[in-house]
Amino acid sequence: MATTAQPVADVCAQAKQAARELALLDTATKNAALEAMADALEQRTHEILEANARDMDAGQEAGLQSGLLDRLMLDEGRIAGIAKDVRSIAALPDPVGETIEGHRLENGLDVRRVRVPLGVVAVVYEARPNVTIDCSALCLKSGNAIVLRGSSTASHSNAVLAQIAAGAVQWAGIPDGAISIVSGGDRDELRQLATQDGVVDLIIPRGGEGLKNALKEHATVPVLYASAGVCHVLVDASADLDDAVAITVNAKVQRPSVCNAIETLLVHGDIAAEFLPRALGELRESGVELRADVRTRTLAGEIGDSLAEATEEDWATEYHALILSVKVIDTLEEGVEHINRYGTGHSEAIVTGSTSSARAFSAGVDAAAVYVNASTRFTDGAVFGMGAEIGNSTQKLHARGPIGLRELTTYKFVIEGSGQVRE
Amino acid sequence: MATTAQPVADVCAQAKQAARELALLDTATKNAALEAMADALEQRTHEILEANARDMDAGQEAGLQSGLLDRLMLDEGRIAGIAKDVRSIAALPDPVGETIEGHRLENGLDVRRVRVPLGVVAVVYEARPNVTIDCSALCLKSGNAIVLRGSSTASHSNAVLAQIAAGAVQWAGIPDGAISIVSGGDRDELRQLATQDGVVDLIIPRGGEGLKNALKEHATVPVLYASAGVCHVLVDASADLDDAVAITVNAKVQRPSVCNAIETLLVHGDIAAEFLPRALGELRESGVELRADVRTRTLAGEIGDSLAEATEEDWATEYHALILSVKVIDTLEEGVEHINRYGTGHSEAIVTGSTSSARAFSAGVDAAAVYVNASTRFTDGAVFGMGAEIGNSTQKLHARGPIGLRELTTYKFVIEGSGQVRE
Repeated sequence: MATTAQPVADVCAQAKQAARELALLDTATKNAALEAMADALEQRTHEILEANARDMDAGQEAGLQSGLLDRLMLDEGRIAGIAKDVRSIAALPDPVGETIEGHRLENGLDVRRVRVPLGVVAVVYEARPNVTIDCSALCLKSGNAIVLRGSSTASHSNAVLAQIAAGAVQWAGIPDGAISIVSGGDRDELRQLATQDGVVDLIIPRGGEGLKNALKEHATVPVLYASAGVCHVLVDASADLDDAVAITVNAKVQRPSVCNAIETLLVHGDIAAEFLPRALGELRESGVELRADVRTRTLAGEIGDSLAEATEEDWATEYHALILSVKVIDTLEEGVEHINRYGTGHSEAIVTGSTSSARAFSAGVDAAAVYVNASTRFTDGAVFGMGAEIGNSTQKLHARGPIGLRELTTYKFVIEGSGQVRE
Repeated sequence: MATTAQPVADVCAQAKQAARELALLDTATKNAALEAMADALEQRTHEILEANARDMDAGQEAGLQSGLLDRLMLDEGRIAGIAKDVRSIAALPDPVGETIEGHRLENGLDVRRVRVPLGVVAVVYEARPNVTIDCSALCLKSGNAIVLRGSSTASHSNAVLAQIAAGAVQWAGIPDGAISIVSGGDRDELRQLATQDGVVDLIIPRGGEGLKNALKEHATVPVLYASAGVCHVLVDASADLDDAVAITVNAKVQRPSVCNAIETLLVHGDIAAEFLPRALGELRESGVELRADVRTRTLAGEIGDSLAEATEEDWATEYHALILSVKVIDTLEEGVEHINRYGTGHSEAIVTGSTSSARAFSAGVDAAAVYVNASTRFTDGAVFGMGAEIGNSTQKLHARGPIGLRELTTYKFVIEGSGQVRE
């Protein structure tokens, strides 16, 4: 395994070398390496926990927030869960070699578009040590070499985990450099990683705005960004109000810290007086702080008087918390326009009984995932049947939405002939 | 039509507005606009020729090279050809709305991945005025708004052509801003265009290295780059030598100025003594200047003594001319390694009778198009059955190889339910 002591450029060059061989590996060998990785995680649980304890101690000493400490923490259950995820990835179909389309030309040439690995994928992440294994497993299965750059707060945990992953890969006869880790913390190192043109094929950042901004400034290598999730539920005039209440509460409350949770509720004026008192009552009972426009406060009945005013800033904010902004709209178009203006293109839902509203919303909202009569909380690679995900893209190029095994590949055209030349 | 007088940011904002409506247009309306565009090109041929004559006069006065003048020049035949191309694009299937995949989840949710336009595509190009119409037609058909930035040398031709395109679009009831042109020549304008984050969704440069470098330095908007084409033919030990000679000559000679023409010939040592005298003789008869490594000069018989020596620089050069470098290799692996080192990932061919060599080459060469027993000259959207192309990508992300209608789209997930919430 490439280790911290090596310069980033060397680690990446070694990864590129390994990537050439990884691209040619059969599925059975990759799966054997994944099974070995899962076994080693279980067998070396004690060692992982020891390393993690060192990171936890250092984190507590440095005064890390309890949320961060929780994300950093591993226990036997979590390690067993990671091993299980690796076995699930082994069980997924191999995307490499899939013929996307193919046909015979008039001149007899057979043209096929065939899925191949990207090459070298770098993943830059914070805290959670499980990312080390999840991303290694996804890259291995999709035939890519991976260069990991974790956070310094998880350095001991990550080092052991990356060593386990690299060891399993080596055991299966896969070359050194297929899985490497460079230490976190050093911004200069990040800049080096982000400028390995022609060596690193893609960077996937899994972290906050600071990390994304650093990459936006320096990266010359392609980056798949995921923006924050400012998501909405729009309750249309013809909505089933029971469904609308259930979907709104679920989308806000079930797990408010994730990016497919909603931040704003848009309610059609025609049903606002009936819907708002019920919905806002239930939301408040679930501990949600509400911020509302003037019409909501007028139409929400008793509860209306006690609502804080939503500001322009609220419409554009991802709260990551039990806070919801609420707005009454006069038309579906007004709602779609609001979403396209303030939304971040992640996950958007309409609750409606009208087929024409459903179609207009699905077509008009510019987002990775648009829902009709369902909670936004389903946006997830595993839920969508794509297997595990390495991230979620809100970009339009290459991959939009969950980034699974297929999204970690590109394609090449393979053309077979019998001596054809161009006239 | 948006015109030069407007600031770039305003032109792009108007394009974005138009893109929202374009995305919802039915195919019949788009096709009607394309037919109107083709009709207008024919009806206004005289006007186009007058504008083009002004550009040609200015170009001659400014001392433009004859090659550039030829690319700038329009005549009745060329305009008829452009109109024909527009009608061909109208006849292609509409990529928008295509369901890429779809299935029902256990909880009853229907998840579909549906093709949608990118939004606003900017095309930055040089000289050739036909690009104005070709790209406008491709973007319109794929539901995208286009912002054109042509070269100042073609400004009169481009202005008339863009006006014709925008007029046809307007006639069909498609909003202003669907097709816009900003004047060429001003580098500050290019920088403005390249930093319209969240407004322009993609920039496609069709020009030389200077343009690409300017975009690499300034662009914060995604760019689809096409690198130069350093392409190869590899003649394997088991090749049919007649096919090998025909393919080599075709790939070099048929049109040496394009990027899918070859620059280097790699010949397996086992057949070099038999193949080289024939192949190099025919190439020389076709006017090709040859540069060779030491073994080629030894094995090429009589012709060998007269060959110039190939330098390290030759292996990495796209000549765009009737020059070919030649190298003898000992193994297929050596050839694949040479290609992966010096090639630009465009189009690569092997001539072989061996199925295992064919598989090893197809899998091992990292390029957009890999050919077995055919000339590299076929890499082209129209030839591949993708309809017309707006460019050719040597990147791995989003689109690799010809960029046709489908490659001008992204997708969204559309999820339909009956009140599902996440547990």
